[in-house]
Amino acid sequence: MNNYRILVQYEGTRYQGWQKQDSTDNTIQGKLEAILTKMTGEFVQVDGSGRTDAGVHAVGQVANFHLNEPVLPQEVMEYLNRYLPEDIGVIRIEEVAPRFHSRLNAVEKTYTYRVINSNIPHVFARKYAFVVEETLDVDAMREASRYLCGTHDYKAFTSAKKGKKSTVRTVKDIVIQKENDMITFTYQGDGFLYHMVRILTGTLIEVGLGKRKPEDMEGILDSKIRENAGPLVPAKGLCLMEVKYH
Amino acid sequence: MNNYRILVQYEGTRYQGWQKQDSTDNTIQGKLEAILTKMTGEFVQVDGSGRTDAGVHAVGQVANFHLNEPVLPQEVMEYLNRYLPEDIGVIRIEEVAPRFHSRLNAVEKTYTYRVINSNIPHVFARKYAFVVEETLDVDAMREASRYLCGTHDYKAFTSAKKGKKSTVRTVKDIVIQKENDMITFTYQGDGFLYHMVRILTGTLIEVGLGKRKPEDMEGILDSKIRENAGPLVPAKGLCLMEVKYH
Repeated sequence: MNNYRILVQYEGTRYQGWQKQDSTDNTIQGKLEAILTKMTGEFVQVDGSGRTDAGVHAVGQVANFHLNEPVLPQEVMEYLNRYLPEDIGVIRIEEVAPRFHSRLNAVEKTYTYRVINSNIPHVFARKYAFVVEETLDVDAMREASRYLCGTHDYKAFTSAKKGKKSTVRTVKDIVIQKENDMITFTYQGDGFLYHMVRILTGTLIEVGLGKRKPEDMEGILDSKIRENAGPLVPAKGLCLMEVKYH
Repeated sequence: MNNYRILVQYEGTRYQGWQKQDSTDNTIQGKLEAILTKMTGEFVQVDGSGRTDAGVHAVGQVANFHLNEPVLPQEVMEYLNRYLPEDIGVIRIEEVAPRFHSRLNAVEKTYTYRVINSNIPHVFARKYAFVVEETLDVDAMREASRYLCGTHDYKAFTSAKKGKKSTVRTVKDIVIQKENDMITFTYQGDGFLYHMVRILTGTLIEVGLGKRKPEDMEGILDSKIRENAGPLVPAKGLCLMEVKYH
């Protein structure tokens, strides 16, 4: 049994997200599994570093899968790219230790969320950014982002229904860059809860609009109440950039 | 009569090109004219700096049009962007002298042609670049491009049928840059013949593949025979970047 690790890019626009669904199969995982299953003649399960939601993009998603019969990595990659639709691509492949697991072994993830802060159309970025016409106060958002970094219970910043799983995470850094009309929020952390990056961004945008103060972030974290945080911003602005392993 | 100059961006993928066609209207010019005609209640003609072919993109197309009744430029732009499809956008507008004409007054144009020189998929650039899997010799292409600059009769590098119009043009510069797998050819000149940038690129690519020598360019120019030049490369790699005026 060989274990293969792949680096996958996709434009999420047309898909229901990473995770395979039962009935209709319009997911990235589903597409990959179908092609590998066709190639090998037996069911192949592909594990991703994490799910990305419907409409979310990836520049650096990592996944792994096992094949019973050894195939050269390069051949597997070529086969995948021959049959994948053109909005999904495998850009690297390598054989890894048998026990490597893309989700369980991930130690850090980086996401970006992009905002077009203008009423002027951005034809070439329209599928990869969310439009906010009113001018955002970048300094205020940066100040607010400081409160959101660190190790906290991010319960207020997730759409996940309550369960037994911990909602404590460590956000290592949030960097907010502005280049012309484009504001890019970069989030680095050990892992993110369901919808967390998009709710963090929605909350920071409200700070940028002057609807909230930077220091309000502390209270929202402490409250652990979803309703106290800002809105869930659209999926299309979000992109999984990188997954790190030891 | 007010004369308005607009800067237009479009993803050409879905369109039959800039120039309005008689029957079906799936052109950039046609879309702009239809909206302005709807806005004013009378026919408005929009003149572009030049035609771009079906599938060609623009980051900096320039056009102008006259309106009988004065409307604030900002209002015209907002109206256009409200009704334009999202793959066309007006990013700047200004009132100009009555006799300004975007095509007749243009003195320089810049186009880029992008090539993905790899067999690894480029999901996010796939609509804006042509794939050449075999490694291209960038130095050889740069050497060849030197012969193609200057003032020449570019008859060999156009698909235009023979006519009385001059096929002499001045290509001010051709810059070839490579960044990872992406090769960008940038062409600056006083104007380009029908298909000229794409045939120049097709010929340079043949140099990059070792099928032609850099010094062959002189003979192709001198011959003035289309068949001696390289192939017409696909529209999707081409983008009109900038049009300059005095």
